[in-house]
Amino acid sequence: MSDEETGTGDYRVEHDSMGEVRVPAHAKWRAQTQRAVENFPVSGQRLERAHIAALARIKAAAATVNAELGVLDPEVARAIREAAEEVAEGRWDEQFPVDVFQTGSGTSSNMNTNEVLATLASERLGRDVHPNDHVNASQSSNDVFPSSIHIAATAAVTLDLIPSLDRLAASLERKSAEFASVVKSGRTHLMDATPVTLGQEFGGYAAQVRYGIERLRAALPRLAELPLGGTAVGTGINTPPGFSAAVIAEVARATGLPLTEARDHFEAQGARDGLVETSGQLRTIAVSLTKIANDLRWMSSGPRTGLAEINLPDLQPGSSIMPGKVNPVVPEAVLMVAAQVTGNDTTVAVAGAAGNFELNVMLPVMAKNLLESVRLLANAARLLADRTVDGITANAERAREYAESSPSVVTPLNKYIGYEEAAKVAKKSLAERRTIREVVLESGYVERGDLTAEQLDEALDVLRMTRP
Amino acid sequence: MSDEETGTGDYRVEHDSMGEVRVPAHAKWRAQTQRAVENFPVSGQRLERAHIAALARIKAAAATVNAELGVLDPEVARAIREAAEEVAEGRWDEQFPVDVFQTGSGTSSNMNTNEVLATLASERLGRDVHPNDHVNASQSSNDVFPSSIHIAATAAVTLDLIPSLDRLAASLERKSAEFASVVKSGRTHLMDATPVTLGQEFGGYAAQVRYGIERLRAALPRLAELPLGGTAVGTGINTPPGFSAAVIAEVARATGLPLTEARDHFEAQGARDGLVETSGQLRTIAVSLTKIANDLRWMSSGPRTGLAEINLPDLQPGSSIMPGKVNPVVPEAVLMVAAQVTGNDTTVAVAGAAGNFELNVMLPVMAKNLLESVRLLANAARLLADRTVDGITANAERAREYAESSPSVVTPLNKYIGYEEAAKVAKKSLAERRTIREVVLESGYVERGDLTAEQLDEALDVLRMTRP
Amino acid sequence: MSDEETGTGDYRVEHDSMGEVRVPAHAKWRAQTQRAVENFPVSGQRLERAHIAALARIKAAAATVNAELGVLDPEVARAIREAAEEVAEGRWDEQFPVDVFQTGSGTSSNMNTNEVLATLASERLGRDVHPNDHVNASQSSNDVFPSSIHIAATAAVTLDLIPSLDRLAASLERKSAEFASVVKSGRTHLMDATPVTLGQEFGGYAAQVRYGIERLRAALPRLAELPLGGTAVGTGINTPPGFSAAVIAEVARATGLPLTEARDHFEAQGARDGLVETSGQLRTIAVSLTKIANDLRWMSSGPRTGLAEINLPDLQPGSSIMPGKVNPVVPEAVLMVAAQVTGNDTTVAVAGAAGNFELNVMLPVMAKNLLESVRLLANAARLLADRTVDGITANAERAREYAESSPSVVTPLNKYIGYEEAAKVAKKSLAERRTIREVVLESGYVERGDLTAEQLDEALDVLRMTRP
Amino acid sequence: MSDEETGTGDYRVEHDSMGEVRVPAHAKWRAQTQRAVENFPVSGQRLERAHIAALARIKAAAATVNAELGVLDPEVARAIREAAEEVAEGRWDEQFPVDVFQTGSGTSSNMNTNEVLATLASERLGRDVHPNDHVNASQSSNDVFPSSIHIAATAAVTLDLIPSLDRLAASLERKSAEFASVVKSGRTHLMDATPVTLGQEFGGYAAQVRYGIERLRAALPRLAELPLGGTAVGTGINTPPGFSAAVIAEVARATGLPLTEARDHFEAQGARDGLVETSGQLRTIAVSLTKIANDLRWMSSGPRTGLAEINLPDLQPGSSIMPGKVNPVVPEAVLMVAAQVTGNDTTVAVAGAAGNFELNVMLPVMAKNLLESVRLLANAARLLADRTVDGITANAERAREYAESSPSVVTPLNKYIGYEEAAKVAKKSLAERRTIREVVLESGYVERGDLTAEQLDEALDVLRMTRP
Repeated sequence: MSDEETGTGDYRVEHDSMGEVRVPAHAKWRAQTQRAVENFPVSGQRLERAHIAALARIKAAAATVNAELGVLDPEVARAIREAAEEVAEGRWDEQFPVDVFQTGSGTSSNMNTNEVLATLASERLGRDVHPNDHVNASQSSNDVFPSSIHIAATAAVTLDLIPSLDRLAASLERKSAEFASVVKSGRTHLMDATPVTLGQEFGGYAAQVRYGIERLRAALPRLAELPLGGTAVGTGINTPPGFSAAVIAEVARATGLPLTEARDHFEAQGARDGLVETSGQLRTIAVSLTKIANDLRWMSSGPRTGLAEINLPDLQPGSSIMPGKVNPVVPEAVLMVAAQVTGNDTTVAVAGAAGNFELNVMLPVMAKNLLESVRLLANAARLLADRTVDGITANAERAREYAESSPSVVTPLNKYIGYEEAAKVAKKSLAERRTIREVVLESGYVERGDLTAEQLDEALDVLRMTRP
Repeated sequence: MSDEETGTGDYRVEHDSMGEVRVPAHAKWRAQTQRAVENFPVSGQRLERAHIAALARIKAAAATVNAELGVLDPEVARAIREAAEEVAEGRWDEQFPVDVFQTGSGTSSNMNTNEVLATLASERLGRDVHPNDHVNASQSSNDVFPSSIHIAATAAVTLDLIPSLDRLAASLERKSAEFASVVKSGRTHLMDATPVTLGQEFGGYAAQVRYGIERLRAALPRLAELPLGGTAVGTGINTPPGFSAAVIAEVARATGLPLTEARDHFEAQGARDGLVETSGQLRTIAVSLTKIANDLRWMSSGPRTGLAEINLPDLQPGSSIMPGKVNPVVPEAVLMVAAQVTGNDTTVAVAGAAGNFELNVMLPVMAKNLLESVRLLANAARLLADRTVDGITANAERAREYAESSPSVVTPLNKYIGYEEAAKVAKKSLAERRTIREVVLESGYVERGDLTAEQLDEALDVLRMTRP
Repeated sequence: MSDEETGTGDYRVEHDSMGEVRVPAHAKWRAQTQRAVENFPVSGQRLERAHIAALARIKAAAATVNAELGVLDPEVARAIREAAEEVAEGRWDEQFPVDVFQTGSGTSSNMNTNEVLATLASERLGRDVHPNDHVNASQSSNDVFPSSIHIAATAAVTLDLIPSLDRLAASLERKSAEFASVVKSGRTHLMDATPVTLGQEFGGYAAQVRYGIERLRAALPRLAELPLGGTAVGTGINTPPGFSAAVIAEVARATGLPLTEARDHFEAQGARDGLVETSGQLRTIAVSLTKIANDLRWMSSGPRTGLAEINLPDLQPGSSIMPGKVNPVVPEAVLMVAAQVTGNDTTVAVAGAAGNFELNVMLPVMAKNLLESVRLLANAARLLADRTVDGITANAERAREYAESSPSVVTPLNKYIGYEEAAKVAKKSLAERRTIREVVLESGYVERGDLTAEQLDEALDVLRMTRP
Repeated sequence: MSDEETGTGDYRVEHDSMGEVRVPAHAKWRAQTQRAVENFPVSGQRLERAHIAALARIKAAAATVNAELGVLDPEVARAIREAAEEVAEGRWDEQFPVDVFQTGSGTSSNMNTNEVLATLASERLGRDVHPNDHVNASQSSNDVFPSSIHIAATAAVTLDLIPSLDRLAASLERKSAEFASVVKSGRTHLMDATPVTLGQEFGGYAAQVRYGIERLRAALPRLAELPLGGTAVGTGINTPPGFSAAVIAEVARATGLPLTEARDHFEAQGARDGLVETSGQLRTIAVSLTKIANDLRWMSSGPRTGLAEINLPDLQPGSSIMPGKVNPVVPEAVLMVAAQVTGNDTTVAVAGAAGNFELNVMLPVMAKNLLESVRLLANAARLLADRTVDGITANAERAREYAESSPSVVTPLNKYIGYEEAAKVAKKSLAERRTIREVVLESGYVERGDLTAEQLDEALDVLRMTRP
């Protein structure tokens, strides 16, 4: 510890380039963190866990490379690296008290990391480690903090969200196979249409989810690009030659992530477009999940006054007043996640457009919203698979009744009797509540030779209509 | 015309403070308009009609007041005023060719107005009228253009949208009365709930629409406040004493609108929060219409595989391939309007947050989006009333069947047998596809004296459940 | 406790209408809460504190009124009320573990409240109190939960946000008075314009904030309207006559809030438009704060390469690499809050549009986003006043230099020499880097009698230009 | 013409499956178009030109393939194809009067296309061609209309937007080279930072724009996937085998676009996620342009009271009241385009989430917003290059003064004297308005041997600081 403790017992006095500050006695953080705690009593929300880990990973790698390049005493570097590994693992999360709504560069959180690591390394080493001159050596908040967002987001997308979407897609695909012969009425404009199978519908949902994975992969090359090495303004001032490439290689090695150095350090420093793009892809996934969750809700609606084509697993009593009611609670939770992700995306876009010159100073709020969205989508997709899709059963009989009662089954007759005659048949069938077959037979199309009885049978086979 | 024509026949040469410009020979506009036409080949969209009218109203009033205050020769003022009245009525709309995406202050459109009026007034008077020194006297684009947006929006809200919402509310209220005894199953979470009447639902929709009118009225005091008189930066430089109050009074008189002068001319010049607020209210109305349109779509879904509780008027064939299909096309158009208004609102908010110091330079795009939203909502509400709600009929028999089949009709029994016993009854009824009454009787609650047969009858009367 | 403990020590077995559940031994909650904890491992976020308090306030009032109306044993009612008061005060927050992303009706949180109160009341009373039959008597999640959102939001708006905005407005007004004679160049399009005073600018900011208060007050009548009494679907099934009016009066009395009963219980149950409207007003306030924060950032930019018209208080070192740097960190935090509120508003609107029939099932996510926005704005406004605006000082000398150097000070000469001549003067002044006065004198306007030397002096007095 | 004219002269009577309709005598459209014109008096906006062309391209290809597969008489097919080519070229645009806000499937516009082509083909052929049975053969609105959106968007992105962005990037790159040695102060948090070159900044902007092109290309695989062949509900009912592949190949050939058939026809029919994703990428590009336009505005601010580092070309007088004022009007127009694209993106996302089962019925509003966004961005990027970036000049002397006066030039001294000493130097320099060099020399660091005079010179070379 670089500063003596005060006599009060509860506080000690730390100083920084602006003067002295009282810090809780047992805090590992120091003056600048403490200033930030006092300056930003805004939300009570802290950085996401994955974000703190990413900051620590950078510090560990920077210490290693700084030592290799002769900037840092190897002993100091090792102490920093070991401390950083503990932080990355989550052992010191309570030492990161700074609010998300802080300085827009995330400097307070970068300094929080520097200070905690300096203290931990000092304790480990038995001599002073300096937050700026040692832990932050060759770095700036302006390249470290945005890099930490990109690393955390790349990790969360590849290690959490993509596997979770894969899990959901697989669940939907299993149901697609299971329901391959459950024929039902298609619905367009919510109105009766020609038949589909329930399996085809679930196959479509699975495709939406798989495309979501493609969307994430399409954005990754720009998300995984790091400003690290640009330091204060993109020029890399105060970094030794080779620093940025070596640090990024080290972080990539330690995390297994496909991280790369920014192709243009001025784009990388001044803009956060890669985060905006990724957020847009998350928003698209939210749109996909909205469609799926709504279809599941409607298909399971009822039991008596809705569509009742499928059954969702019963998870909990649905009403505090209506006994016996069971509701599609997981699809509802998924819909709320989708609404949250959509709003978070607005925040990311508004923040992403607010940069000026060499820095965007809306970084912490972009980080919070993007990382929260990834986490929410991953949890929601997993939950939807585990607690809903896996347990869905079909009401095959009712579904087939729907298919057969839809007036749109007249559609295959277009080629025999033309669109306008077919429309008359459909309307008559509906008005008189009789089947299409009855109306066709009665109306003399077969007698007149427009089509044969066999052709009529084939044309009105609802399952066949799903596989033209 | 103040400038000689060129010899080319198709063009004449005009000049402004930056030099010479070639203008189409027959254009009433002059150099600055022409520069803007050439500088902004962006969208092909021009100002809304109501916006041009509002600009002209200001010019007419300013000319009148300038003459009263001795700033302008009364003859010149009269010529400007008469020309402005023609523009306000829409006779010269083709003379306003400047793109919406232009200079952010709307200066190009203000100058377009000044130039066209100068030309028309010159022709009328037989001598030169100057766009800046005469038509724009005592004014600046920076107070005139935002004022024109507020005037146009106030006019559109009070004269178009509120009456249109009133029309829709009245239509819904008539249906509410008509359907007062059509009992149906309520639906919560899309699942069967306790009964409501269709009339109660339509009454709720009418209330939503009436609240929309309240919302607009709540925003009007700030929408109807005009920056007029602040000129360049809010200080009112180059206006004679009394100018702003007199001009606003004159515009208010001419339009019948409740316009007032800005309470703080620096707020009025630097911020456009009143437009953002109004846009938020329009967005809320879009949300209301979304709920209503979706309920109507679902209630009319079918005819065979949906809910089929109500019938919407048939307006057009619904499918190019499925004969006889009829779709809820007007509610769909309303939903698309709601989505557009929601997006327009985002644009207004993003633009509204982009101001700096004494001016917001996103004015034309705010105007376009706000005025378009008002117009779309007004047309959509009227259309929904005229072509859908007025013609809705109920399938009362089916609705009652729903009410009676819902397991939630067990709810009134809670007070006799408790929530948990009631839940057992509901589940048994559902599992065995029998009525609640049958299960209650069979289960011995009446025999055991939990309730009497009369109490059971009363408790299970579905229409009574809608009027506790 | 209504259920015996299991022998395991860590868990006990509870049951509900769906069967048995293992609940942590020391939890005050019961089966349905536990199911929800297991069903919704989504975000780790719980209801806002103010929201739990509002739920408890409703339960307390309902118990009181149920006793008065003979529905509940007065002893049971008293035990519930006393337990609810403890919950309202925040003594049992850790007993509310249900995730925000849960069933869309908030039933799980309503049941969590019912269960915790049942347990606390049972302990207090020494006999069983039932979560549904007693605590939830005469209520449904469908009216209680949305009512709790409206109550919590009304409380937060009136007791937290409005006072905080008032604090900020007062701070800005003090600075407006202090800076009344600090003349500076106005800026429109970011370009030099005619003079304003710094006091006028701060007065404009104060007006924006005061208008924000008006906006909140304009929305309150609809925000403070409660669906309470509608129970399951708006019909008020299972409520005794007089219940809703009495409960709302009791909550209003206990909280001092202007709460009213829904004018239309079907609007109140099926739609959440009042929350969407309020969120729109919060978004408008966010837009106002964005303008103010950006102006403050730019005015204080520098110290050497920016505008440097004002100084913000130094709060913390600004850079981990650039020594001595101080940044406008509080305005940055405010901008991030504004971006968050804008995104939260999108979530509220998307969720608000997602209702069907008798219930919107996006309630918890609407609550979270709306209440968070109120809290963030209140904290941000207070912070901006306390840590930035209060301490702002002006660089009056530099500001006056700006005012005098702006070529736009030529504007008052329009009336003497016309717009086009004035433009020539301005351009010459700029090109030759000489003052407007010099160019005017040299160009012979005074000699020619266009204006007198006194008129020129008066016309070029920059402070006078701010008070025409 | 299939229907006789009425005797009225101005109208003729047409019929469709719902009955008779009066159609303007000279209209090429028929009954269903006319119904739609009357049913949807909403916005006055029609489909985008590129959209009508895409519809016609599909019809031409379908006619060709239908003839090849024996579904259509080759003579009829040829007549349809030739008519469709004329429509694609824009010769009949006035025959497409249907409002954007119509039936959500776009059926009215599909039928408008079918009817106009039937009439034109009938006229050409001298015998009746039927809109449904011939022009729409093997198709449905539900696959044709969304396919037309994807085709139009793919065309607009690849043939208009990408070239326009490439044009802008090239212009920025030229300026980056031109300004490679113009050293200036970097700015982070708007505050003085270490030096950069203007060329580095422009290089960063160019990179943002080039990344925008990458973003579009990343989304193209899913945008270029067509639902064509799915007909009514994705099953391809009423299409002959091989139809979809052949039609898509034919459209791809005719347009030169990389179009492919949907990998899953149920995803392709029920969801429009590919449009949502593309819109998200457009929004990211809007964010990029916002950053660039704002930087250009601020760098050119002044001329006397702003930053004045660069000069934008003068395009038009800037003020109707302040003579000689010139404003950054093109960057302002670009900012307004960016705000519009951001709002359009919200509309696309809201609409994209609104699908149910086998169809999204928000298609026309998605088309309008997406295609408008592409067009606006293409025009804005071109305009920014042509009328602003190409003509930018630098105030190199002023820029260097800024670089040298920034207190952050102390940063390279960190490695010699440490962060805290360097902070003292910076503060002293600022407080005493002296250069960093002076303060360093005076403070004895050289004397004490912390660094040599040569090291000091090198460390304080501002251009060198931009190339560490």
